[in-house]
Amino acid sequence: MADKDNAVVEIAKRARIASYQLAQLNREVKDKALISMAQALIANSDKITKANQVDVEKAKSTGTDAAIVDRLTLNTERIKEVSQGLLDIAKLPDPIGEVIRGWVQPNGLEIEQKRVPMGVIGMIYEARPNVTVDAAGLCLKSGNAALLRGSSSAKNTNESLVEVMRNSLKESGVDIDAIQLVPSDTHESVKQLMSARGFVDLLIPRGGASLINSIVNDSLVPVIETGVGNCHVYIDKDADIEMAVSILVNSKASRVSVCNAAETFLVHQDIAPNFLPKALAALKDKQVTIHGDEKIKQYCEKAAISFEPVTDEDWAAEYYSLDIAAGIVDSMEEAIQHIRKWSSNHTEAIVSDSMTSIDKFVAQVDSAAVMVNASTRFTDGGEFGFGAEIGISNQKLHARGPMGLVEMTSTKYIVRGKGHIRGKVGERNK
Amino acid sequence: MADKDNAVVEIAKRARIASYQLAQLNREVKDKALISMAQALIANSDKITKANQVDVEKAKSTGTDAAIVDRLTLNTERIKEVSQGLLDIAKLPDPIGEVIRGWVQPNGLEIEQKRVPMGVIGMIYEARPNVTVDAAGLCLKSGNAALLRGSSSAKNTNESLVEVMRNSLKESGVDIDAIQLVPSDTHESVKQLMSARGFVDLLIPRGGASLINSIVNDSLVPVIETGVGNCHVYIDKDADIEMAVSILVNSKASRVSVCNAAETFLVHQDIAPNFLPKALAALKDKQVTIHGDEKIKQYCEKAAISFEPVTDEDWAAEYYSLDIAAGIVDSMEEAIQHIRKWSSNHTEAIVSDSMTSIDKFVAQVDSAAVMVNASTRFTDGGEFGFGAEIGISNQKLHARGPMGLVEMTSTKYIVRGKGHIRGKVGERNK
Repeated sequence: MADKDNAVVEIAKRARIASYQLAQLNREVKDKALISMAQALIANSDKITKANQVDVEKAKSTGTDAAIVDRLTLNTERIKEVSQGLLDIAKLPDPIGEVIRGWVQPNGLEIEQKRVPMGVIGMIYEARPNVTVDAAGLCLKSGNAALLRGSSSAKNTNESLVEVMRNSLKESGVDIDAIQLVPSDTHESVKQLMSARGFVDLLIPRGGASLINSIVNDSLVPVIETGVGNCHVYIDKDADIEMAVSILVNSKASRVSVCNAAETFLVHQDIAPNFLPKALAALKDKQVTIHGDEKIKQYCEKAAISFEPVTDEDWAAEYYSLDIAAGIVDSMEEAIQHIRKWSSNHTEAIVSDSMTSIDKFVAQVDSAAVMVNASTRFTDGGEFGFGAEIGISNQKLHARGPMGLVEMTSTKYIVRGKGHIRGKVGERNK
Repeated sequence: MADKDNAVVEIAKRARIASYQLAQLNREVKDKALISMAQALIANSDKITKANQVDVEKAKSTGTDAAIVDRLTLNTERIKEVSQGLLDIAKLPDPIGEVIRGWVQPNGLEIEQKRVPMGVIGMIYEARPNVTVDAAGLCLKSGNAALLRGSSSAKNTNESLVEVMRNSLKESGVDIDAIQLVPSDTHESVKQLMSARGFVDLLIPRGGASLINSIVNDSLVPVIETGVGNCHVYIDKDADIEMAVSILVNSKASRVSVCNAAETFLVHQDIAPNFLPKALAALKDKQVTIHGDEKIKQYCEKAAISFEPVTDEDWAAEYYSLDIAAGIVDSMEEAIQHIRKWSSNHTEAIVSDSMTSIDKFVAQVDSAAVMVNASTRFTDGGEFGFGAEIGISNQKLHARGPMGLVEMTSTKYIVRGKGHIRGKVGERNK
């Protein structure tokens, strides 16, 4: 742990000290603090919305996209929702202290693996100020100190939210440095967070692909890569057609701007003639454009749905729009090969009634989540029952898929002896 | 996943294909393959030792340190030991397929979290050729394809070992690219491994601190940091003195070149006058040098043990030698503060008979392993009963402490519906 003095390291050192207290807090204390924070946010709604108004005005005056301005905006109603999030987190079980494994060695050593907090978690995220409260709440419940690095466009809002939460922590007797804002004025603070190895235990970026990639590439602090999703729906020859249409439409069109939306569908040639007319009609209703191969083109023409010839860029694309790449495959093997080549391994779905096909697809598709006769949209902390979600991990290390409280923890071995010493290598003695 | 064509990416692509088969193999097939590999290594002892002789001669002729030449050397006896390691791995339970969690959501979605292989694991390690076989065996059993990047000084040995193992795999019907050697001629292959994000799922460096640091700093592929150990022994005022002496001597002097050896001891002032004379006499017998504070100096002079004044470098040091830093503390709190400041959070031990002290130490010391009345030397995959060890993780992400087969796996969610589609945000429907 090199001693590198900069603003973020100073903040992280205070967070580390807070983390020592946090790790020892009982659930009761943490839950009370969460409930107080929720109440404080509502009590300070006026102050927070006023601060938010400054950010919103600034965003509008600089010609920010209306959708982004909307995401940035907080009003009394939204503050209530955000507070409700904290109350929901208070209701979740406390992951800390759980004994994951425990056993006795032949020599009598008693070994226990216990769940402990990570320590100091840095969050780097974009415009939505609700992440500020969400992340603070999830970190607090999981016993971690939170370093929150939001967008500069939400600077005033975030400062106000964090001030309210810190004041509330003080009243709850929790070290206020459990929740700290990292300055968002310059990109320098992101660099400092990424290089704070030893001071920050984990970085979780939440935002667009470019934000996430730059952090994954540059960070010396361990990172969990989140949210990149090129999800596939495979319609097997033994699919129920109504079900397949419904799942496909839901996977693509229920919400297009999210990582668990489908970006490609592949249909088995045997079922294509029956499936495609219905599927394309339904997708057309939702104003979806098909990026398809030659085989699918004729069906699209017949359905009079918007069509583009598919390219490799399409197979690789996360559209986040009402576009979908589509292909007809000769076999499930071809679909699996296609998915292996192009998927980001986030979520893949199969619609089928064949146990053989389902078993094979589930075993051979290596994604964070494999859906069987269900929409890809279910890969989500809330839908999984985690109650809250800090992100959806797209990597295999540590956490894979939706991340709840458990995924924000590490473990510690506690080994109890009675004066046990170790013999020579290969030799076990008391 | 950017397409970067280089030698390592080509190797990794073959490993990926092999990993698809590996992920599907039953335990029976894997165990038979491991046993065959063990037999093949013994059957080819002559060939392997001949190849090893080339490396050993070269090392000697370039004036390599005798200890390193010894570690590099393979003979029939050592090949037997290495083979036995594979047989031991065959006896371990298969982690793949284990259902870690499973539940049903209120809407009827059935969610299961299953253990799956990581996929492709890269190992970067130094002179010992036994790691080549160990790592190959552990990867095979955990369903992972292994990319082995050993030291150029063991090039001929590693090529011979890998050739024998791959030939054996072929006979077992396993894709031979499950085990591949990465060229060790230049450092370029290490760089290529580190930048092969998307092609390699995990890198595990094994070796000295400089190797590990350079990989942690430069790798784009997720890394598990292993083996950095500045371990502490704290002797509480309520310690059994005989036990404390025995644990301290064992922690420091039973093997000095390992990460779980103690590098500092701290003794409570109340017990110091009774403990130190006995402890220093025992450490003197082992030819240990004390790097101590002023308070401890008088005891050292009386015991006539080699003494140096302690510096901050000493508190931070991993000596890997018969040196130990030592201090007298006013309270356990002071010991905990010291450990928080200087420890690498690998292993810390307390010797005490006080439940209050033990509970506090265990709760407040945040290390991968906390030993209670046991030697620090027990932090070890073998001693934990893992049967084999790929390294000792010193980070909080993914795996912490000794890593066995389970730590070489990831998980996958399998979600089974009956045509489930998702409603609007915040709304759960069928």
